[in-house]
Amino acid sequence: MPFRYFVPMAGILVINGPNLGMLGRRQPELYGATTLEALIAGLRAAFPGTDIAHTQSDMEGDLVRALLEADGHQDGIVLNAGGYSHTSVAVRDAIAAIQVPVIEVHLTNLLSREDFRHRSIIGPVCLGSIMGLGIDGYRLAIEHLLGRAG
Amino acid sequence: MPFRYFVPMAGILVINGPNLGMLGRRQPELYGATTLEALIAGLRAAFPGTDIAHTQSDMEGDLVRALLEADGHQDGIVLNAGGYSHTSVAVRDAIAAIQVPVIEVHLTNLLSREDFRHRSIIGPVCLGSIMGLGIDGYRLAIEHLLGRAG
Amino acid sequence: MPFRYFVPMAGILVINGPNLGMLGRRQPELYGATTLEALIAGLRAAFPGTDIAHTQSDMEGDLVRALLEADGHQDGIVLNAGGYSHTSVAVRDAIAAIQVPVIEVHLTNLLSREDFRHRSIIGPVCLGSIMGLGIDGYRLAIEHLLGRAG
Amino acid sequence: MPFRYFVPMAGILVINGPNLGMLGRRQPELYGATTLEALIAGLRAAFPGTDIAHTQSDMEGDLVRALLEADGHQDGIVLNAGGYSHTSVAVRDAIAAIQVPVIEVHLTNLLSREDFRHRSIIGPVCLGSIMGLGIDGYRLAIEHLLGRAG
Amino acid sequence: MPFRYFVPMAGILVINGPNLGMLGRRQPELYGATTLEALIAGLRAAFPGTDIAHTQSDMEGDLVRALLEADGHQDGIVLNAGGYSHTSVAVRDAIAAIQVPVIEVHLTNLLSREDFRHRSIIGPVCLGSIMGLGIDGYRLAIEHLLGRAG
Amino acid sequence: MPFRYFVPMAGILVINGPNLGMLGRRQPELYGATTLEALIAGLRAAFPGTDIAHTQSDMEGDLVRALLEADGHQDGIVLNAGGYSHTSVAVRDAIAAIQVPVIEVHLTNLLSREDFRHRSIIGPVCLGSIMGLGIDGYRLAIEHLLGRAG
Amino acid sequence: MPFRYFVPMAGILVINGPNLGMLGRRQPELYGATTLEALIAGLRAAFPGTDIAHTQSDMEGDLVRALLEADGHQDGIVLNAGGYSHTSVAVRDAIAAIQVPVIEVHLTNLLSREDFRHRSIIGPVCLGSIMGLGIDGYRLAIEHLLGRAG
Amino acid sequence: MPFRYFVPMAGILVINGPNLGMLGRRQPELYGATTLEALIAGLRAAFPGTDIAHTQSDMEGDLVRALLEADGHQDGIVLNAGGYSHTSVAVRDAIAAIQVPVIEVHLTNLLSREDFRHRSIIGPVCLGSIMGLGIDGYRLAIEHLLGRAG
Amino acid sequence: MPFRYFVPMAGILVINGPNLGMLGRRQPELYGATTLEALIAGLRAAFPGTDIAHTQSDMEGDLVRALLEADGHQDGIVLNAGGYSHTSVAVRDAIAAIQVPVIEVHLTNLLSREDFRHRSIIGPVCLGSIMGLGIDGYRLAIEHLLGRAG
Amino acid sequence: MPFRYFVPMAGILVINGPNLGMLGRRQPELYGATTLEALIAGLRAAFPGTDIAHTQSDMEGDLVRALLEADGHQDGIVLNAGGYSHTSVAVRDAIAAIQVPVIEVHLTNLLSREDFRHRSIIGPVCLGSIMGLGIDGYRLAIEHLLGRAG
Amino acid sequence: MPFRYFVPMAGILVINGPNLGMLGRRQPELYGATTLEALIAGLRAAFPGTDIAHTQSDMEGDLVRALLEADGHQDGIVLNAGGYSHTSVAVRDAIAAIQVPVIEVHLTNLLSREDFRHRSIIGPVCLGSIMGLGIDGYRLAIEHLLGRAG
Amino acid sequence: MPFRYFVPMAGILVINGPNLGMLGRRQPELYGATTLEALIAGLRAAFPGTDIAHTQSDMEGDLVRALLEADGHQDGIVLNAGGYSHTSVAVRDAIAAIQVPVIEVHLTNLLSREDFRHRSIIGPVCLGSIMGLGIDGYRLAIEHLLGRAG
Repeated sequence: MPFRYFVPMAGILVINGPNLGMLGRRQPELYGATTLEALIAGLRAAFPGTDIAHTQSDMEGDLVRALLEADGHQDGIVLNAGGYSHTSVAVRDAIAAIQVPVIEVHLTNLLSREDFRHRSIIGPVCLGSIMGLGIDGYRLAIEHLLGRAG
Repeated sequence: MPFRYFVPMAGILVINGPNLGMLGRRQPELYGATTLEALIAGLRAAFPGTDIAHTQSDMEGDLVRALLEADGHQDGIVLNAGGYSHTSVAVRDAIAAIQVPVIEVHLTNLLSREDFRHRSIIGPVCLGSIMGLGIDGYRLAIEHLLGRAG
Repeated sequence: MPFRYFVPMAGILVINGPNLGMLGRRQPELYGATTLEALIAGLRAAFPGTDIAHTQSDMEGDLVRALLEADGHQDGIVLNAGGYSHTSVAVRDAIAAIQVPVIEVHLTNLLSREDFRHRSIIGPVCLGSIMGLGIDGYRLAIEHLLGRAG
Repeated sequence: MPFRYFVPMAGILVINGPNLGMLGRRQPELYGATTLEALIAGLRAAFPGTDIAHTQSDMEGDLVRALLEADGHQDGIVLNAGGYSHTSVAVRDAIAAIQVPVIEVHLTNLLSREDFRHRSIIGPVCLGSIMGLGIDGYRLAIEHLLGRAG
Repeated sequence: MPFRYFVPMAGILVINGPNLGMLGRRQPELYGATTLEALIAGLRAAFPGTDIAHTQSDMEGDLVRALLEADGHQDGIVLNAGGYSHTSVAVRDAIAAIQVPVIEVHLTNLLSREDFRHRSIIGPVCLGSIMGLGIDGYRLAIEHLLGRAG
Repeated sequence: MPFRYFVPMAGILVINGPNLGMLGRRQPELYGATTLEALIAGLRAAFPGTDIAHTQSDMEGDLVRALLEADGHQDGIVLNAGGYSHTSVAVRDAIAAIQVPVIEVHLTNLLSREDFRHRSIIGPVCLGSIMGLGIDGYRLAIEHLLGRAG
Repeated sequence: MPFRYFVPMAGILVINGPNLGMLGRRQPELYGATTLEALIAGLRAAFPGTDIAHTQSDMEGDLVRALLEADGHQDGIVLNAGGYSHTSVAVRDAIAAIQVPVIEVHLTNLLSREDFRHRSIIGPVCLGSIMGLGIDGYRLAIEHLLGRAG
Repeated sequence: MPFRYFVPMAGILVINGPNLGMLGRRQPELYGATTLEALIAGLRAAFPGTDIAHTQSDMEGDLVRALLEADGHQDGIVLNAGGYSHTSVAVRDAIAAIQVPVIEVHLTNLLSREDFRHRSIIGPVCLGSIMGLGIDGYRLAIEHLLGRAG
Repeated sequence: MPFRYFVPMAGILVINGPNLGMLGRRQPELYGATTLEALIAGLRAAFPGTDIAHTQSDMEGDLVRALLEADGHQDGIVLNAGGYSHTSVAVRDAIAAIQVPVIEVHLTNLLSREDFRHRSIIGPVCLGSIMGLGIDGYRLAIEHLLGRAG
Repeated sequence: MPFRYFVPMAGILVINGPNLGMLGRRQPELYGATTLEALIAGLRAAFPGTDIAHTQSDMEGDLVRALLEADGHQDGIVLNAGGYSHTSVAVRDAIAAIQVPVIEVHLTNLLSREDFRHRSIIGPVCLGSIMGLGIDGYRLAIEHLLGRAG
Repeated sequence: MPFRYFVPMAGILVINGPNLGMLGRRQPELYGATTLEALIAGLRAAFPGTDIAHTQSDMEGDLVRALLEADGHQDGIVLNAGGYSHTSVAVRDAIAAIQVPVIEVHLTNLLSREDFRHRSIIGPVCLGSIMGLGIDGYRLAIEHLLGRAG
Repeated sequence: MPFRYFVPMAGILVINGPNLGMLGRRQPELYGATTLEALIAGLRAAFPGTDIAHTQSDMEGDLVRALLEADGHQDGIVLNAGGYSHTSVAVRDAIAAIQVPVIEVHLTNLLSREDFRHRSIIGPVCLGSIMGLGIDGYRLAIEHLLGRAG
């Protein structure tokens, strides 16, 4: 049986990077109309037995800290690092330094946008990535992490 | 409520490209131990009400044809184009030519492999992509397409 | 008198590559509304005394074969290799291996499209190229080949 | 019927750029033995009902001016910008600024010559291009423009 | 009359990025001898009826926040993002996310400095830019924004 | 007091390059609706005590000459070199050869247009540049030069 | 004794890619005058106790299949992938997926031909390569594989 | 006598950037087993008469501030900017803005790691650099600064 | 005897490109203090029996024309194309079109100046080049041409 | 009969470049356990009637000299230029200057090693190359040269 | 205690490459005023119990040999390969072939000099590097090696 | 009078690099038929009052030494570094280290040969260069150096 059952009693951390605090309030034609609060609430409703923590920051260093502090306390991390995905060696080093699996999520299909968005500097040290599927990407990432965590 | 209910009565086509006929029988440390037959069977078991068609070919032109012929007959396509993902303008043109949404799936995290695997020539015309999550990527892609198809 | 008279009793082979079987049925805003069948019929009507053969395939290897087999049997070839124009060393080698003059035709102006369409790997071994003039490019290519064949 | 009838009563401007005043007198093995005068005369003979204007200049600014002044007075332009094809943003801007369709013509197959000739900076704003077919390229370009003008 | 009169009753936000708190105290041969405080005071004196707000931070995330929070409350933004101009996708995304027009200002002519200063990653989403004119660039930018705001 | 008073009794030369003679008559959605004549008249009205000379040419060499001849006779130059901005080493050498400060002006934000417009070959030898602010850029440039000339 | 004796009772598969069916009949000045049939016959004569299988195809997917199916049945493979050597990730993946050692052979010295022939995408996963020695390269490759197979 | 005696009564600031707070606790096979606290204590023990200040931050802007504020108060700075070494123009500008000599230190040999670690954007404005010698690099840097400070 | 005697009765054309009319009057620290008039007079004095013609223009097209018209009337050409040396395909094509040997001369050592001056687009079709030897380069070029013309 | 008989009475020069004097004594996992002396002895044993000369040097200039002096005295050269293969224009020029055919040999498959080993600057002027087959590459190269020399 | 005590009874080899024989006699503003003899004497005085051998050569091959011969006889090597640092694959291979740890030293900060000095081809196989600290870099390197050798 | 009289009583050193010992005996169609001995004899005959020393070596380090030792003893150096011109940082550093002016000479026009010959790494630190004028380039270089030495 190739697909594992979910073991929902686990801790998942969702980290959102710069500009994502504006989700649903800016450029909805690009990023959708759901606010960040609604997204997190929706994820918690979708995985009732799972402890879903969340943090958002526009600061590169905050993402570094959130990643480092999650080590040993979370079973999986869903990370949308926004613009830092393409530039931050510091965030990359933090992901590489911890044991928790990290899935990179992007709301849009970065490959159909500007060239500088095609390169993910954090991608090579993540478990994998989901992009272009809107906020559903967060849900799918958690679903995969839960199966893996079981 | 940001996440849609699934509408499982839909037609999904899974297309696998070159070398994927060997799934589970070659390099399992890289691609896992599940065979292609078991993968498809597992997907059908996971989505019992969905009509999941499947085709595999080592031929670039076969992928082009499968994509073109699916137009108007399928609600979504999950495509693992293997090595053609990085080189085939012909497959890209076929994806762009049809109305069915296509999600690109890769078993491994291409960003942590050779440089020539970092560029997806078909990615910009797909709806999105999932990579690095093993065969679970196929399941997640179908799950998303079903929510979208409803 | 710089322009030669046409000598219409000649054999011309038209080769169309991947996705061109869909001509007129997909993306007409880009490629026009004429079907492949109508195009060939129109060419035969435009050059009544000329033997116009035609083949279309989504397979790179089929284009190679069609080119090799035309050698010694055709007076000119009009080739729209579609996506293989930008990637196929094999098609290029086939053109270089034969004596029949080949004119490369593209329906659209590739220079105003994506970057990867700006490079034609087969162009350097063709006699010349016509692009951006829609299906009229096929007719002009044959007209030139007939003048040359006389 | 895919191919339109010609409507020869139209005004066509042929613009030749640097070094083309020497046509037929320099490097005939490359550019052919027909002089520029004979070329224009031949074109007028080939399209008896069409008003074919012609200008040649070695000056980049003259090409800019000729293009700008043709706007509103010509039905089509055939442009061989010679060496400026690869370097002139000014000529490109002039083509983009006018409504008359412009076809770029080159006597030789630039793709089989030096690397710096592979890039046409004016190509993306032209209707299309014909290259490698010698002076016949001019005739074919006019033929296409007349069909379009009808 | 091509130039508009100023409508000085408007709100302008001046944002200064990293190292600009040292203006006038470090490298005056490069950046001039006016301090940041004197610059802001001078701008307020130059536009007496305009409400000129100001913020300076060495933190990339602070620039992101200042931009996002200005939306809906300011009529124009003058941004000197310092070193982040060349690296910050996050700042770029913030500029693109808001409706307020942003003019990029640089004290020095970046084109005559190191290569890595030639690329502005935020430039493409700004209204325009002024560079090399020293602190006068701030004044000219406000002047333009006021004319536009009227 | 960081901002100087204007000293309007000075000579300013405005130089416009290729295609700018068409200002207001071609592509107004890109370049605005003001004609070149109206622009110059507006500038003279805006700076009543200043002697504003003007020249426009589509010729690269004319720009070279205008720059060289202005040396010793003008207090500042506003230069919109159009397409030559990106290609002309000759114009650059002329700017470098003279003592008069030159400000480069562009009507549009070149950074949000084609890649080849991102590079200004003349920029490194100018005093500075203003772009994306439409014709107001000319006015702002003169305003800065007058403050400097005082 | 550094060189091993040959153990000729082994199975060797020779795979020839696109255009090689024309060996000896096209461009003999480049590829020599021996036909493919004569080459294979010559190899069998040179290694009388060895079972030398052969396949030629112009299809990329056929090469993939021939490689995959040889696994477990052959002691060594001599592969001249022709034009696919420079472009095919699919063929590369097939070579990497199997246990049989593969030696890449090219008739000509690719380094003294066009730039795009300098890169072998399949080379890094082959055991080694021989090029520029004409059809003798096939014989030397088999000789090495037999010594290795013993 | 080419080597100077140490003048230990001096002030040295050690600045550690992102992820270095985890020193000794993450990836010891790469960065060693000494914690940051032990490192600083060891440095103070090694240079008993020297005042060694220390700061660590995951924030790019904090590094900028620490550098700027050290000017005039410290005799030398040892900087391990971690991931910001490769991306931060802001940190570079801060180093360039101050008079205190800065030595860049890296625990590992960056040249034998990923490509993006080969470029130090801050290196050109530092006095020099030491890398690959583990935590001993900090000690050697201070030793050099003390000799220089004398 | 490897060095030929001069045969001074020959025609030499010296062509100077953009900005060289200012020789001796602008940037003497770079280009020397000799005026263009004095240079030509000095060359005529140095080669009393030789007919030395001279032309200078800031126009790219004028250089093209001067080269084309010299064919058949001069024994050698000394060309300092100034800024056009790095950009002009048109000048290159003119040099290639004529039989007269052309020596490229530059006053300064272009290799120790800006990167864009390192590439000579006209160099590959000249006989050779002399640079960095100031105005003496003109004299040496003529000396060589006279030896060759004999 | 496509394969020629060997004519062993010939002179072959084997040239080994830098570090190859250590063969068998350093990094045997990479280069094998056979010493240079044993390799040469083995080659002489394998070709009893052939006069096999040998030279090894760590000096680039020695390789140049050995190549130049072999001209006219040897029937073929087997060259393993080690690290100079990737950098030495001088060795390349020596190979191009002589008439003796040279085969480049490398013990390892350079394509599966570092990027800078993928480029052979001497390859384009050699007859061909053998790599990745260990010391057997030397034997195969001689075998080919003897067939060619006959 | 993170820092080890020195064990001075060890053998250290200092290797200096091309031009370093001129140390102190050429360009002292760049390389300092200490001669090579004084440097070595100073190092021996600084480490009285250590056996410090020294060799200098302008020959690339001599550096290769010195490195290879040191294997098994020295406890550490300090290498300033001068210009060969940026070009020599042969020196790199020698460093990789031996067991003795090698520290690369450069007198100047190469990152603030020409672009071609930014790449060290030998760096990736050294233990680490020290640059920009003048001759003190040699002393620090030995100090580190002695701590390591203990 | 712009051209100086020669002051022939001076010392000139001619240095020839790798392969130039074969001058006149290898590839005369490229490098001419004059031997190196005849070239030097011809130069001495052409400048009877000048002391012309000469050295040739295939060794990079020998060129370094010859340059360094000439400092203070010669009035000018003519250097044809052959293949080392494109690769040797060591030779470049030697030229930069000495006071004697060096003119780079090449027999052929490197710009019309392979790409890797277009870059001279030693050029930026030479006084100037002469190429494409055959052995006459040596004579012209000495002539210039004598005028300069006077």
